[in-house]
Amino acid sequence: MPGDGRIARGDATRRVVLRRAVDVASVDGLAGLSLGRLAIELELSKSGVFALFGSKEELQLATIEAALDIFRSHVVTPARAVAPGLPRLRAVCEKWLDYSETRVFPGGCFFFNVGAEFDARPGRVHDAVAAANGSFAAFLREIAAEAVALGHVDADAEVLAFELHALGRAANADAVLNGGTRPYELARRAIRARLGVVSGKAG
Amino acid sequence: MPGDGRIARGDATRRVVLRRAVDVASVDGLAGLSLGRLAIELELSKSGVFALFGSKEELQLATIEAALDIFRSHVVTPARAVAPGLPRLRAVCEKWLDYSETRVFPGGCFFFNVGAEFDARPGRVHDAVAAANGSFAAFLREIAAEAVALGHVDADAEVLAFELHALGRAANADAVLNGGTRPYELARRAIRARLGVVSGKAG
Repeated sequence: MPGDGRIARGDATRRVVLRRAVDVASVDGLAGLSLGRLAIELELSKSGVFALFGSKEELQLATIEAALDIFRSHVVTPARAVAPGLPRLRAVCEKWLDYSETRVFPGGCFFFNVGAEFDARPGRVHDAVAAANGSFAAFLREIAAEAVALGHVDADAEVLAFELHALGRAANADAVLNGGTRPYELARRAIRARLGVVSGKAG
Repeated sequence: MPGDGRIARGDATRRVVLRRAVDVASVDGLAGLSLGRLAIELELSKSGVFALFGSKEELQLATIEAALDIFRSHVVTPARAVAPGLPRLRAVCEKWLDYSETRVFPGGCFFFNVGAEFDARPGRVHDAVAAANGSFAAFLREIAAEAVALGHVDADAEVLAFELHALGRAANADAVLNGGTRPYELARRAIRARLGVVSGKAG
């Protein structure tokens, strides 16, 4: 059994590899990940990196988990800190657009990219990507339903959550593909109008 | 110089390869295309296929052109056949959703997938993907502006076009990733509400 020092070094190496892996995957896709290439780029021993992850698929799954932690810290956690109802609904939209616009991941939203990449490729990576996307979609529906239940918004919560998520993803797609900030402006205008129209109270 | 028969055979082979290439790329991405693999799958001579396209990048660019032809025939041409204004705006949304839902490409919207794949990878393929996405976005804005100019819709045409495009792409993304038809229902409800709310006339 390795001593504590060796476990700690393994954990630190794992974190370094995964932080690089999420950035690479956000640009080149999860299929573009390579344990060998990551080891070379990070000047780590190849055998050590292989020992930590075992296979490309394990690396892909660990990369999705690592990206999810980063996503949650930028979007979900700050939104949860805001009062429920319309304030939280506005906050989650704003945090999501900021997360995309400030390029927390260099290729834009990690989950947008790997969702498009693995949507039609069955397997464990597809299922992990679908679960990650599904958990954020459920979070949005929950916040939209809170806003409806509190009487802040008069809408079908499921349709409203779908619309808001759609606007964010479209802004991310257009901005990363074409550059510029116009898509974010369009999304913010549409979200403001959408949340303004349906609400007579709050905010 | 090859005789006419040889040119005709080359054109026919090119069409066969490209029809297969658009389907493969819609699932595995443009990076997943391989001249060698296509030749084997289609039982064609490798050297013949290489001679027709020359390089993987040329194949990728030709695949985008071929997909654009298919997209236009399913979405743009039928929408142009409908009366301008709100009828054409509704038609283009419906045709786009049908194009995604009936899986004209097995991986869902070709341009959604390759847009996410190449958005952050500079080069000729990125530029061709951006041009294809840009030309459809411009078409949508043109139709939305017609509807505004005809007094069928009271909206900012650019924001409206962005919203409608966002809803279609989100339905495609969710449906291909998770299966089922619910995302299309949500998109249709949102589009109907969006085009109903802004319009006092027509339709």
